[in-house]
Amino acid sequence: MIKVGIIGGAGYTAGELIRLLISHPEAEIDFVFSTSNAGNQISKVHQDLVGSLDKIFTDTVNPNVDVLFLCLGHGNSVKFLKANTFSENTKIIDLGNDFRLEADKVFEGKSFVYGLPELQREAVKDANNIANPGCFATAIQLGLLPLADAGLLNQDVHINAVTGATGAGTSLSATTHYTWRDNNFSYYKPFTHQHLGEINQSVKQLQNGFDSDILFMPNRGNFSRGIFATIYTDFEGSVDEAKNMYKAYYKDAAFTFVSDDNLHLKQAVNTNKCLIHLHKHKGKLLVTSIIDNLLKGASGQAVQNMNLMFGLEETTGLQLKATYF
Amino acid sequence: MIKVGIIGGAGYTAGELIRLLISHPEAEIDFVFSTSNAGNQISKVHQDLVGSLDKIFTDTVNPNVDVLFLCLGHGNSVKFLKANTFSENTKIIDLGNDFRLEADKVFEGKSFVYGLPELQREAVKDANNIANPGCFATAIQLGLLPLADAGLLNQDVHINAVTGATGAGTSLSATTHYTWRDNNFSYYKPFTHQHLGEINQSVKQLQNGFDSDILFMPNRGNFSRGIFATIYTDFEGSVDEAKNMYKAYYKDAAFTFVSDDNLHLKQAVNTNKCLIHLHKHKGKLLVTSIIDNLLKGASGQAVQNMNLMFGLEETTGLQLKATYF
Amino acid sequence: MIKVGIIGGAGYTAGELIRLLISHPEAEIDFVFSTSNAGNQISKVHQDLVGSLDKIFTDTVNPNVDVLFLCLGHGNSVKFLKANTFSENTKIIDLGNDFRLEADKVFEGKSFVYGLPELQREAVKDANNIANPGCFATAIQLGLLPLADAGLLNQDVHINAVTGATGAGTSLSATTHYTWRDNNFSYYKPFTHQHLGEINQSVKQLQNGFDSDILFMPNRGNFSRGIFATIYTDFEGSVDEAKNMYKAYYKDAAFTFVSDDNLHLKQAVNTNKCLIHLHKHKGKLLVTSIIDNLLKGASGQAVQNMNLMFGLEETTGLQLKATYF
Amino acid sequence: MIKVGIIGGAGYTAGELIRLLISHPEAEIDFVFSTSNAGNQISKVHQDLVGSLDKIFTDTVNPNVDVLFLCLGHGNSVKFLKANTFSENTKIIDLGNDFRLEADKVFEGKSFVYGLPELQREAVKDANNIANPGCFATAIQLGLLPLADAGLLNQDVHINAVTGATGAGTSLSATTHYTWRDNNFSYYKPFTHQHLGEINQSVKQLQNGFDSDILFMPNRGNFSRGIFATIYTDFEGSVDEAKNMYKAYYKDAAFTFVSDDNLHLKQAVNTNKCLIHLHKHKGKLLVTSIIDNLLKGASGQAVQNMNLMFGLEETTGLQLKATYF
Repeated sequence: MIKVGIIGGAGYTAGELIRLLISHPEAEIDFVFSTSNAGNQISKVHQDLVGSLDKIFTDTVNPNVDVLFLCLGHGNSVKFLKANTFSENTKIIDLGNDFRLEADKVFEGKSFVYGLPELQREAVKDANNIANPGCFATAIQLGLLPLADAGLLNQDVHINAVTGATGAGTSLSATTHYTWRDNNFSYYKPFTHQHLGEINQSVKQLQNGFDSDILFMPNRGNFSRGIFATIYTDFEGSVDEAKNMYKAYYKDAAFTFVSDDNLHLKQAVNTNKCLIHLHKHKGKLLVTSIIDNLLKGASGQAVQNMNLMFGLEETTGLQLKATYF
Repeated sequence: MIKVGIIGGAGYTAGELIRLLISHPEAEIDFVFSTSNAGNQISKVHQDLVGSLDKIFTDTVNPNVDVLFLCLGHGNSVKFLKANTFSENTKIIDLGNDFRLEADKVFEGKSFVYGLPELQREAVKDANNIANPGCFATAIQLGLLPLADAGLLNQDVHINAVTGATGAGTSLSATTHYTWRDNNFSYYKPFTHQHLGEINQSVKQLQNGFDSDILFMPNRGNFSRGIFATIYTDFEGSVDEAKNMYKAYYKDAAFTFVSDDNLHLKQAVNTNKCLIHLHKHKGKLLVTSIIDNLLKGASGQAVQNMNLMFGLEETTGLQLKATYF
Repeated sequence: MIKVGIIGGAGYTAGELIRLLISHPEAEIDFVFSTSNAGNQISKVHQDLVGSLDKIFTDTVNPNVDVLFLCLGHGNSVKFLKANTFSENTKIIDLGNDFRLEADKVFEGKSFVYGLPELQREAVKDANNIANPGCFATAIQLGLLPLADAGLLNQDVHINAVTGATGAGTSLSATTHYTWRDNNFSYYKPFTHQHLGEINQSVKQLQNGFDSDILFMPNRGNFSRGIFATIYTDFEGSVDEAKNMYKAYYKDAAFTFVSDDNLHLKQAVNTNKCLIHLHKHKGKLLVTSIIDNLLKGASGQAVQNMNLMFGLEETTGLQLKATYF
Repeated sequence: MIKVGIIGGAGYTAGELIRLLISHPEAEIDFVFSTSNAGNQISKVHQDLVGSLDKIFTDTVNPNVDVLFLCLGHGNSVKFLKANTFSENTKIIDLGNDFRLEADKVFEGKSFVYGLPELQREAVKDANNIANPGCFATAIQLGLLPLADAGLLNQDVHINAVTGATGAGTSLSATTHYTWRDNNFSYYKPFTHQHLGEINQSVKQLQNGFDSDILFMPNRGNFSRGIFATIYTDFEGSVDEAKNMYKAYYKDAAFTFVSDDNLHLKQAVNTNKCLIHLHKHKGKLLVTSIIDNLLKGASGQAVQNMNLMFGLEETTGLQLKATYF
């Protein structure tokens, strides 16, 4: 059994990790670290776990766990790793954005691999440390990778995506107050979302000379889970050529599938899937990409990376029942 | 024109008052007092007012307004009135719970009348100061008054009611976080809600010897506005007798109507109405009562009271377009 | 008093018209025509009207009303007018799309004016018959008119907009089933929405040589009311220049306002407003435009047009209390 | 592997069964029968299954499956079994209400056992045919069984419960239209819900002389999944005595747990759990009971029954990741 430590245990992504790992046949939770909740029952915070988990939060780490998941606010993984030492054999999967960009990939001798299996499954398998992709970044990259791989991203890329309220984290804010968000819609950080860095980086990894603009509008939806992204850019081929290209690119993907039909968000909610749909209008290819922001966009992909790193079947513990309704 | 001052201007009930008063033909807003927002545009806080109101919050009161609405947290009206002095002619309408109970009705020489027009319209007309009823208290009393008036509340009264998230106020809390409340349901303060005091008081005002239990379960719904209350108790008559009794009791009511059909919450949302439906099952009379918690349950009723106090038509400025969808 | 007839009375837009007109000081509802509901109380269908309207649906028209609102499915206004004759003095306001395009503007001797007051208030005032704009078309045109008026739409225009479920009409369908739509998101008719015709027509009316593409993605949101539209295109000036241009263009508009702050949908819900926000990123101007699809996007604008046609103050009966929560 | 046939495959409960069984390690879906969808991909109807299931609906049954799940409208299981013959070894689990009551338990020589494991696990293990309980009936019975078992239900039982829109089935209706149900609340069948029959039957099975009234108000919530039930009745003991009694009664239950803390609906959504909370107010015991109506209230409990009938661990394939957000 893989011994797991989880840091930052009171947040959404930690909660999802716990939900996944309590049923994972090859992993067991060694400790869940939360300074603010140390000593409390985990099921007092993640309250669906009543009857499923009888364990308390700790403020002491076990430095010999096999894998450590960092579920901290962005910038705090670096701080945590400076303050705490783990065994040389402990693998690290960081769900924050501290190690995603090329410039940040080496930290105190540890090298982090960008953990998007559809981009570089073999590198993930060999990795000791993983920088887990961002949620919007995952949905958008999975919509772009086949085009970049074919060198076909040669014009502006227009992206509009909407995320659920869990994307904003557990802290209370005006825009996550129920009375504000209920039946509401809005955007934030137009064209300047922080995930553009990792998206550009991956696109350039596949299509070296890429220098078009990625125009990305991120929106807040009035739902809790999920990302629905639409992407369009110039494309000369037919929709069937596009489909074949995408299906070929994702033929070995464990969770990314091309749908022949229009998509709606709930097809992916509470699963680790990314579903992709392709549509052609005049000279534009419209790519739709949907994920659950907390699973394929965070904790599910983190477990997927763990599975790969430890030589397990990629889907172990991740064949989840969709909520759908 | 009635000159209006509003105290506690950043909250939900103050926002609703402003929305009502900017279109009220006989009243004008003199000042909106908010210490936390003094100097800011009101439309920066109540953002639907862009284009409708070009006025700023103040931390200075005009002691000569004709009427003062207190929209403060419970207990703070007393504090505010101790610290601030107004003209003898300034009428006060308190939306908090400071002056609702018999024991609290006189404060520093000012006498407060419980402002439920359906219970005591004439007393409201003559009042200088009003204690505006609570939201649950309004919905429930309007469901009970005709029975109490007929002396028919002689057994336990069972009440289940659900309120929207605006009922919890603007402050952020775990149970008003969008991710928690979205598609959720829960209760709070079972059988001990603070509005039971004023409900019992009004029932006894009409039915002197009332000494049965009122068993009230208050619930949190996953919507923003409205209260849906079901009430049942023993009743020997037919449903038609009940309807006649309720219709007679409310024949002069400006906003309370008996519906022959089943009710659903949105019939009352964004209106100042209370709709009542009656149903008989074996020996029980089931009374359904619905209101908008921020209007008939707070600010709308406050304006209704103002209209009565100033000799205006009771419905002035309150013929609101229901949202319905 | 303006005597009003409403055709197609059981639908959403007719319901909203009734809600508006029962409080309109200069108009009165003469009849509400609905073949499917003839003989029934109107308040049995539009159930928020309990206590507000005691009138029944009819299947007989009064040919001498002053104004007739057609609230029929698209294509059915022509059929209705062929089958029914009205006085020469009866003005017609069609909420469908039968008469919006240049090619359709004259029908059996009647000439229809496109009823977007911000585009052509004077023509509306003089009109005998109005083609009321579509909901998406209204939000998008109000976001584009100042640019078109200045001749500045010279590159592709990218539009993403999301509408509430009332946009799909009252008929039941898979995508309006609660279990499907709750917490869901999807698009439809990518780049080919039927409102593109009237949008292009108005843009060309102001900017004669306009020949760029309007790339419009319409989405289905999980809310009932409202349209939130984002629009971007190339713009060389500063954001302040854009604001000044928009404020100048809308200086006399009764319901369209430029907001200095970011917008969220509920600022416009249950009002007749259109709120506009401008943002500049590198060479792109981002225009946000929000409306209530049933009010400014349909029935509210229809009443606004009626007011203009009958020489009333444009805002009469339309100073509505926003729901906001 | 247990070979499974599913009848009525296009509905909610069939969809949930498929979602559960595709990951069940000891069962495999042999066929999914749907006359209306025969020949279509299952993933065209249950669209979250894209990438998970490549199988088509059939209108031909395999009479030799090991177990048959009937997911038909109430009354249609009898019709189906009259028209179709299966092997003597085929076990049947009926999710409708055709065989739940004592009077209906034997049909053409087949005897049906009421499949509530917490009531009669051993009988389920030995059963050839199961009548799977109703959703409200499950939540309410699990709230009442310990009291009935102790013979303590001696006064009226007051129940208020709210269910999600999936409780109403897939057919489109006025009260499942998104625009109606969004942010709405209502009740139906006050005091006369059809599940009262099976609830009374089970209570009497444990407490022979039970003859009090069960006063049950069923409500429609504006969410898709889940049942939140509150139940109160007279109880002389302390809350700790009640807790001990409930914990003892459910000590071997695989999915029913007593929570020391207040409950909210989403703790159970997308799980097969029933969570129970106990609270005492004066002489009343308040029991809260929450389930997912489609899982513990339907398909999850059906699989639980299958597991018991086939000698599997009761939780096999049912350790589901809660949605929670």
